[in-house]
Amino acid sequence: MIPRSVNAAPEFEVAAWLNAHGPVSLAALRGKVVAVYAFQMLCPACVSHGIPQAKKVRETFARDDVEVLGLHTVFEHHAVMTPAALEVFIHEYRIDFPIGIDRPSDKGPVPQTMDRYQLRGTPTLLLFDRSGVLRQKIFGIADDMRVGALIAQLVAETADGSHCDDGACRL
Amino acid sequence: MIPRSVNAAPEFEVAAWLNAHGPVSLAALRGKVVAVYAFQMLCPACVSHGIPQAKKVRETFARDDVEVLGLHTVFEHHAVMTPAALEVFIHEYRIDFPIGIDRPSDKGPVPQTMDRYQLRGTPTLLLFDRSGVLRQKIFGIADDMRVGALIAQLVAETADGSHCDDGACRL
Amino acid sequence: MIPRSVNAAPEFEVAAWLNAHGPVSLAALRGKVVAVYAFQMLCPACVSHGIPQAKKVRETFARDDVEVLGLHTVFEHHAVMTPAALEVFIHEYRIDFPIGIDRPSDKGPVPQTMDRYQLRGTPTLLLFDRSGVLRQKIFGIADDMRVGALIAQLVAETADGSHCDDGACRL
Amino acid sequence: MIPRSVNAAPEFEVAAWLNAHGPVSLAALRGKVVAVYAFQMLCPACVSHGIPQAKKVRETFARDDVEVLGLHTVFEHHAVMTPAALEVFIHEYRIDFPIGIDRPSDKGPVPQTMDRYQLRGTPTLLLFDRSGVLRQKIFGIADDMRVGALIAQLVAETADGSHCDDGACRL
Repeated sequence: MIPRSVNAAPEFEVAAWLNAHGPVSLAALRGKVVAVYAFQMLCPACVSHGIPQAKKVRETFARDDVEVLGLHTVFEHHAVMTPAALEVFIHEYRIDFPIGIDRPSDKGPVPQTMDRYQLRGTPTLLLFDRSGVLRQKIFGIADDMRVGALIAQLVAETADGSHCDDGACRL
Repeated sequence: MIPRSVNAAPEFEVAAWLNAHGPVSLAALRGKVVAVYAFQMLCPACVSHGIPQAKKVRETFARDDVEVLGLHTVFEHHAVMTPAALEVFIHEYRIDFPIGIDRPSDKGPVPQTMDRYQLRGTPTLLLFDRSGVLRQKIFGIADDMRVGALIAQLVAETADGSHCDDGACRL
Repeated sequence: MIPRSVNAAPEFEVAAWLNAHGPVSLAALRGKVVAVYAFQMLCPACVSHGIPQAKKVRETFARDDVEVLGLHTVFEHHAVMTPAALEVFIHEYRIDFPIGIDRPSDKGPVPQTMDRYQLRGTPTLLLFDRSGVLRQKIFGIADDMRVGALIAQLVAETADGSHCDDGACRL
Repeated sequence: MIPRSVNAAPEFEVAAWLNAHGPVSLAALRGKVVAVYAFQMLCPACVSHGIPQAKKVRETFARDDVEVLGLHTVFEHHAVMTPAALEVFIHEYRIDFPIGIDRPSDKGPVPQTMDRYQLRGTPTLLLFDRSGVLRQKIFGIADDMRVGALIAQLVAETADGSHCDDGACRL
């Protein structure tokens, strides 16, 4: 796990949020663990593993503890993975958690949040703790049990940065 | 989750331990979370789900935090699910965690630990916290992500009974 | 199985063929069994079952005996399931058999071949015998073993319409 | 596929048949395709793949065309894979096709039918044509679609040895 730090992660640069009542921000989710699935709608492993796992996280954990978000980080085939196509994808795959559209960059094909977070590709799972600090960045297919354990570990931490485990509580 | 209590769970009544250097006791494992898979070697769901999940728990969590045990709770077909047959099963299925043989009862077909813990059948997953208190009893097929989360939640608790979550630490 | 008839099935009305050297016609494939997977690129069961099964048919049977085709029968969300989007889908999912784009109709959302063949939706598997007669139309998820058996049964038939089985050869 | 021959395969040497009304013989099944799954009840791949596939063959093909048999070829751990243990296995795994117990040899651990058929281990699938000739011997995990195709191909053959395919009928 990425060591804890005092620094909350940067906000997402998102052109629009789907399945959401207004913009979503990490700041507004402070206090909850946030699981973010970066994906592309035509990326096979995202469709077969990432999105189903995101749904399972949504079913497994309480909404008071864990927020699940998708982030559509299109870095190739921009002409067809459009917002309109994404809306159809969300409808057909019955996704009900908020999906942000990573804001395109005028410097190249990689969108702004993907660049800011230095993602290597899709799918990538980002886990933020209750203080908004990025604690996990998993590229590729992640095992369900491991993801369940990582999220539960973050859920068990306190929001102010202290952390109790195995006989000790640290700052 | 079963509420915490001050009472550690009763010890297992085991006729013999396989894959172990001498007897295993819950008391000696105090300080660790213990995941116990009660199974029968000829129970289909135990073979297809319980045992593979037990192996995955063993791979996912550190040995310092989590102990994985099997408990062969034979309550039917005693004549063929013998200790000798179990040894072959363990060998063929490449199980490397300790397996206890639940001690037969002279009162009926249900063995002693199974009776003491009031198990409804196999497979059953028992989760004990670091203080030796039984916290989960799941009969049937359990989802990998949920099991990962439940174990991690117990791992995050302290051994002395205090428990920190979501902004507070309780006794 | 649909009874044999003397009538070959009607040709596909296709706007364009991808992964092909020029147009594909059922007439030109006479002599081979033809397995056609009607799909939409944003239909979940097509992506999780239909396309992988089509690939497996391609691997299991010899090209001399069996041709595998895809047919993109877009009957909803036409604005995003465009030919350009389909090309990306084919690339990302590494599909190497020919894919026809069912020709849109000016009478409604259902494309022309889908209408002509009275398909109920996607995925649908169409099996044509060596004489070009439609023999199976399976809507929804089809079992691999059953599909393997149905295709092999057609492969074993002769092209001229006679058919030997179980002790007899019929016209 | 093993070439056709004029020689029917040798009979099985079986100590007892379970799930059967009296002895089963290849001779008595002449006219049907016969799929035989050689297995051991404590062989993991037999339990996870062989037996489920045998059940699927039973569901996919008509009883008039295809007979499914199991053959318990115990070549190791004889003391625990006994007939009594096999009966429990058949009951717990809800197997309803006939299972023969390969007759032990007094020359070594390999039972008589396994030796006669020169099997390399378990699981092994044996396919006999309508004339009782062994046509396939597949050791290890076999793909469902391929097995469906191989059986259907044999089903399509005539019993007297003539064989029609692809434009010709041969002796």
